[in-house]
Amino acid sequence: MHEQVRDYQVTQEPYYRAVGDEVDLYEAAYAVRMPMMLKGPTGCGKTRFVEYMAWKLGKPLITVACNEDMTASDLVGRYLLDANGTRWQDGPLTLAARHGAICYLDEVVEARQDTVVVIHPLTDNRRVLPLEKKGELVEAHEDFQLVISYNPGYQSLMKDLKQSTKQRFGALDFAYPEADVEKEIVSHETGVSADVAGKLVGVAERARNLKGHGLDEGISTRMLVHAGSLIARDVAPLAACRMALVRPLTDDPDMRDALDAAVTTFF
Amino acid sequence: MHEQVRDYQVTQEPYYRAVGDEVDLYEAAYAVRMPMMLKGPTGCGKTRFVEYMAWKLGKPLITVACNEDMTASDLVGRYLLDANGTRWQDGPLTLAARHGAICYLDEVVEARQDTVVVIHPLTDNRRVLPLEKKGELVEAHEDFQLVISYNPGYQSLMKDLKQSTKQRFGALDFAYPEADVEKEIVSHETGVSADVAGKLVGVAERARNLKGHGLDEGISTRMLVHAGSLIARDVAPLAACRMALVRPLTDDPDMRDALDAAVTTFF
Amino acid sequence: MHEQVRDYQVTQEPYYRAVGDEVDLYEAAYAVRMPMMLKGPTGCGKTRFVEYMAWKLGKPLITVACNEDMTASDLVGRYLLDANGTRWQDGPLTLAARHGAICYLDEVVEARQDTVVVIHPLTDNRRVLPLEKKGELVEAHEDFQLVISYNPGYQSLMKDLKQSTKQRFGALDFAYPEADVEKEIVSHETGVSADVAGKLVGVAERARNLKGHGLDEGISTRMLVHAGSLIARDVAPLAACRMALVRPLTDDPDMRDALDAAVTTFF
Amino acid sequence: MHEQVRDYQVTQEPYYRAVGDEVDLYEAAYAVRMPMMLKGPTGCGKTRFVEYMAWKLGKPLITVACNEDMTASDLVGRYLLDANGTRWQDGPLTLAARHGAICYLDEVVEARQDTVVVIHPLTDNRRVLPLEKKGELVEAHEDFQLVISYNPGYQSLMKDLKQSTKQRFGALDFAYPEADVEKEIVSHETGVSADVAGKLVGVAERARNLKGHGLDEGISTRMLVHAGSLIARDVAPLAACRMALVRPLTDDPDMRDALDAAVTTFF
Amino acid sequence: MHEQVRDYQVTQEPYYRAVGDEVDLYEAAYAVRMPMMLKGPTGCGKTRFVEYMAWKLGKPLITVACNEDMTASDLVGRYLLDANGTRWQDGPLTLAARHGAICYLDEVVEARQDTVVVIHPLTDNRRVLPLEKKGELVEAHEDFQLVISYNPGYQSLMKDLKQSTKQRFGALDFAYPEADVEKEIVSHETGVSADVAGKLVGVAERARNLKGHGLDEGISTRMLVHAGSLIARDVAPLAACRMALVRPLTDDPDMRDALDAAVTTFF
Amino acid sequence: MHEQVRDYQVTQEPYYRAVGDEVDLYEAAYAVRMPMMLKGPTGCGKTRFVEYMAWKLGKPLITVACNEDMTASDLVGRYLLDANGTRWQDGPLTLAARHGAICYLDEVVEARQDTVVVIHPLTDNRRVLPLEKKGELVEAHEDFQLVISYNPGYQSLMKDLKQSTKQRFGALDFAYPEADVEKEIVSHETGVSADVAGKLVGVAERARNLKGHGLDEGISTRMLVHAGSLIARDVAPLAACRMALVRPLTDDPDMRDALDAAVTTFF
Repeated sequence: MHEQVRDYQVTQEPYYRAVGDEVDLYEAAYAVRMPMMLKGPTGCGKTRFVEYMAWKLGKPLITVACNEDMTASDLVGRYLLDANGTRWQDGPLTLAARHGAICYLDEVVEARQDTVVVIHPLTDNRRVLPLEKKGELVEAHEDFQLVISYNPGYQSLMKDLKQSTKQRFGALDFAYPEADVEKEIVSHETGVSADVAGKLVGVAERARNLKGHGLDEGISTRMLVHAGSLIARDVAPLAACRMALVRPLTDDPDMRDALDAAVTTFF
Repeated sequence: MHEQVRDYQVTQEPYYRAVGDEVDLYEAAYAVRMPMMLKGPTGCGKTRFVEYMAWKLGKPLITVACNEDMTASDLVGRYLLDANGTRWQDGPLTLAARHGAICYLDEVVEARQDTVVVIHPLTDNRRVLPLEKKGELVEAHEDFQLVISYNPGYQSLMKDLKQSTKQRFGALDFAYPEADVEKEIVSHETGVSADVAGKLVGVAERARNLKGHGLDEGISTRMLVHAGSLIARDVAPLAACRMALVRPLTDDPDMRDALDAAVTTFF
Repeated sequence: MHEQVRDYQVTQEPYYRAVGDEVDLYEAAYAVRMPMMLKGPTGCGKTRFVEYMAWKLGKPLITVACNEDMTASDLVGRYLLDANGTRWQDGPLTLAARHGAICYLDEVVEARQDTVVVIHPLTDNRRVLPLEKKGELVEAHEDFQLVISYNPGYQSLMKDLKQSTKQRFGALDFAYPEADVEKEIVSHETGVSADVAGKLVGVAERARNLKGHGLDEGISTRMLVHAGSLIARDVAPLAACRMALVRPLTDDPDMRDALDAAVTTFF
Repeated sequence: MHEQVRDYQVTQEPYYRAVGDEVDLYEAAYAVRMPMMLKGPTGCGKTRFVEYMAWKLGKPLITVACNEDMTASDLVGRYLLDANGTRWQDGPLTLAARHGAICYLDEVVEARQDTVVVIHPLTDNRRVLPLEKKGELVEAHEDFQLVISYNPGYQSLMKDLKQSTKQRFGALDFAYPEADVEKEIVSHETGVSADVAGKLVGVAERARNLKGHGLDEGISTRMLVHAGSLIARDVAPLAACRMALVRPLTDDPDMRDALDAAVTTFF
Repeated sequence: MHEQVRDYQVTQEPYYRAVGDEVDLYEAAYAVRMPMMLKGPTGCGKTRFVEYMAWKLGKPLITVACNEDMTASDLVGRYLLDANGTRWQDGPLTLAARHGAICYLDEVVEARQDTVVVIHPLTDNRRVLPLEKKGELVEAHEDFQLVISYNPGYQSLMKDLKQSTKQRFGALDFAYPEADVEKEIVSHETGVSADVAGKLVGVAERARNLKGHGLDEGISTRMLVHAGSLIARDVAPLAACRMALVRPLTDDPDMRDALDAAVTTFF
Repeated sequence: MHEQVRDYQVTQEPYYRAVGDEVDLYEAAYAVRMPMMLKGPTGCGKTRFVEYMAWKLGKPLITVACNEDMTASDLVGRYLLDANGTRWQDGPLTLAARHGAICYLDEVVEARQDTVVVIHPLTDNRRVLPLEKKGELVEAHEDFQLVISYNPGYQSLMKDLKQSTKQRFGALDFAYPEADVEKEIVSHETGVSADVAGKLVGVAERARNLKGHGLDEGISTRMLVHAGSLIARDVAPLAACRMALVRPLTDDPDMRDALDAAVTTFF
């Protein structure tokens, strides 16, 4: 592995609980270096999955949290001023393409469409990245793969990927895990008993039913892990759930009452 | 403590009057390094609370007043031009993450959503901060914690945190303190008698009932401290209240009359 | 006084004609270093008042005319490129905070709200100014005070101070002076006789009654001084009033006729 | 005269044909250094007038054509990079204030309001210009005067001067000159006979009656000078009028017919 | 071939399956160096065609993925800072014009119209490119040709080429290939049997009929190649089609059902 | 001729077919250095005309393709960083003004109005160009003339020249040439027979009648030259017309049918 990307290697196996054939499908996609799009709600495990796959495939992983301010230069690289003039510095996408890492663009719809188009030549059969400012045409390393994540719930007229971008990717759907699987995850990650974990998952299921009926999003697995870790530190379950599940989710008094009631039902 | 953050240590115990179990809950949250979100109206003591907790936990506190112009670079750092070329300078978030401070992003909804996403990798289990411009991946110091404040009353369609941000935080609610507690605070902070402090709190309670009925916000504890400190300097109570409570709050003649009447009732 | 702010000392007593207890109230506010907000229409003497108070208190005065383009850097400071690399230069707010001047932000609603929030940590009990770009935390000099001016007539949905800003200030109201006082001011500032000054004030009172009935603003004291100084240079009163009072105020033919008639009534 | 502004001296008497007492009034305004605002339609002679007055008063004249992109730095000055670091360069407003020129901001409504406010401290009794970026407070030279021009016809809700700006100025109105005067001007400037000049003025008067009835502006004196100078070069009057008066003014076929008919009536 | 563009030579014959007389027409257009515009939906082979033509004509090909952020400098070039001051660097358009490459502006409607106008002087009989920042007038190399691509389906009031740009180009239409041709392409590119390729094309035809009835775009040839390459790696056809054809295309549950049904019909 | 503008001399007589007295009128306008505005639809020969006049008058011609991004600095010049600090570089307008070229601003309505105002002082009797950033006042060379082009069809509320700009120019109208003249042009420029050229002109006339009835613009002379040059290279007339006349003009199927029918009528 090239030293420039060695820091990005995932050295310890991340805890990932597969819920279907997503691991096999991803491996097949990686085998043909198909660019991949991971779809699903916030906090359901997309980032963890790509970390797990990077570890399994033994490839370095370069993650970029996308945002509206991100320019093409932030992805591709720029000239820095040096004692001897300017020096080119590869951006994360170039680094990954040049040295063979998996490049993961997290929440790619946040980026402006025009920033997104810089990935086009890397996602068709050319697999090149033109560094226009440097006048260099980088041919992607054979290990390079591009992965993006995408929350369909956020998609709007203003913020959606262009069809000409979407069609360059294979796609995998993610959702919150089944109750039994989620219970196992919460217990494993926080150390609370299976019983407590099960109650937390029960609260989450109630809350997820309220999505679209006053809540923009349900309670994510990540939030359950937060609540569980407070309970494991001897915080009272009611206080822990209010602090980690209810208050962050909504400021609406009625929704808070409904969620508090759900918590009381289980604890 | 690392010398780069030593200036940010809170050396004297800040005056903080607890109103519930918020101190214990915060300590539990810090123990698991859960990112925290403090919700509540302006001037009710959120900033004072986080200063108090930083003092109690013995951790340095780096506060950032968020604003719409703030770029990711303002949080993360940037290259400065030097006699020998460019030199990297950590921003406040990087400083806190690298050396183990509590980083407090005050009024985080003011910042653009896309600036906010730079905190994402620090607020999940990775606890890393990629410095894309520097090509460095900072692993957060074990003492690092992120705290944000948030005024739900300001939240609008345009300015609200994204669900994918909110779900990364535990939350504590703050409100103006109960009358007795607030009286104690005003008296302690200004030196006026309990009687005068009680009258000021009485005026504030009247004004807070007008919130939503012509006033955007009620009179905050901070404003009562202003009025009290003028009275303690022998300014006539009526003049002090007009200058510190009524005039700053509204320019509407009717609301001013209503507030002036409330002042006259008590003094 | 520190040499860096010595240029900003008000060396001669500015002519200021008090109209109430505003001088005493300001002194009490300064004694507790309460941030102050001066409210009132354009040209009624707010700037002159703060100059007078700075002279009376013997403190240097740093005035900043706010505008929409003003960035936080314009207030706080920035790095300049030097022969030996970059050199930090304090902005006017930092200069005042560091060396103990009164900092007066004139027409603060013109500045963007997000620029305004940089004053927050200077206006609560912390009295600090974090220079994020420099990585320095300036503790305000004990003489430092912040004063802002504000024209309530301009306030709109788009341009108003946030409640969380307003609540940090005590407030004083200003208006055009009473007829007798204004006559004294015009005569003193221009050298015209009390009779002529009285006629000019008469014209102004007529015009001020038209505010909201076709005129956005009335005739300010400053405009009367303009007209008086022309008359003192032997310009015919009618021509002087047209040039200094009527034409600058409005281009509407009907309003001009009404104002011309008012002028003719008195001269 | 300081060498830095010597280039800006008006060395030859500009041709200016006074139409009223505007020369005397301006001299009185200059005597008290009252900031002046020249109002009137495009091409009616405002710029020529200020050149004439600068010549008559023997003061250098620095003219700035305002535009929406103009920043405060364009008026005030900026740091330039030099072999030995940065070097400050005065902008035109600073140059005029420092060395005693008349500074003429042409079409000031084009500039953004926030750029305009930098002139405020120069237009009240302080007569100072704070160079915030340089940390210098320039006291205006005793010869300095500020003049702005303003076309009331362009004024809109979006682009108008703020009242707090307008009230700092005395104002003079300008219009197209009376027929006899305009005839004299056209003849003097182009060399055509009084007869031809009279016909051109006749065409202009017809066109000016169409203003607001299909034409945004009438034919200006400047356009008559264009047409006259073509006729003086033996271009046929009809062709000259079409090229210099009709085609530049409108693309509307009906208005063109109406204007062509007016031309044919006179030639 | 000039060394600066040698990297851009297409050294291996790209696989291109002609569907009409487009190859001959393009050759005639190149012979008179007519600028060309390739119109058609995303993923139908426009980019592949221009690569094929560049290979056939033996000319280097410089491709630019256009985006909204692209400035004229990104196309034309800029000054870079060097140890000895500034150094000019040709942008991709200048490189192509100077040394005789085919310059292909992919998805040109993404670029701002004002960026697009820099190509005007290269697309009329002048065939020059003024480098205004450098003060140089580049005369295009005789081998230079400009090609742009354009997806009429994206064209909107906001994003369309100006008529004055369009009229500078000859145009060729592209569409998805006929079933037999597309089958041949899919089989050739992925190694699946003609039978499997035919089934994939069948799915695509169904999906293309849904365009405008719930789908923004149909399934492109590129997507079929994705699905085929997964099947060739022993992924079950149903899973391969869902991952490569259905999920990337839409998140609408009804459309997904319809597409899944189409897949089941064939496999 | 000054060496800095020698590259811009038009050395060969451009082919220009006069359609009226435009050559004589332009010469008269140049004789008095009247700024000129050329109005007319796209591709009708405005640029060719100004090239011809520059050749006829023996003056260098500096052409600037205007665009919305163009800043005043792009026209006027800027400081470049050099080994010894900054060095001023004249922009195209300054170059032309200083050394006596004709400066042609093509499609001037594309430029922002505020960029356009920099030409004002060059277009009245002052004929100066203030380089505010350099602190220099360039007096225009006696040979300098400013010419702008303008397509009235594009003019909208958002993009039109200000009256105060328009009134500084004489204007010439351009249209597509009469059939006989256009036939002569097409034949001369492409080498096709008069018969073929006549048929192409026939197609164009039909298309021009559709302008405003489904077509934004008609077929320009430039497009006819494109079609003719393909026919001269033995492309079948039908294919040549579709490629050069129909497809570039519209994507609307009905309009394409109508245009194809017109082509079939003639060939």
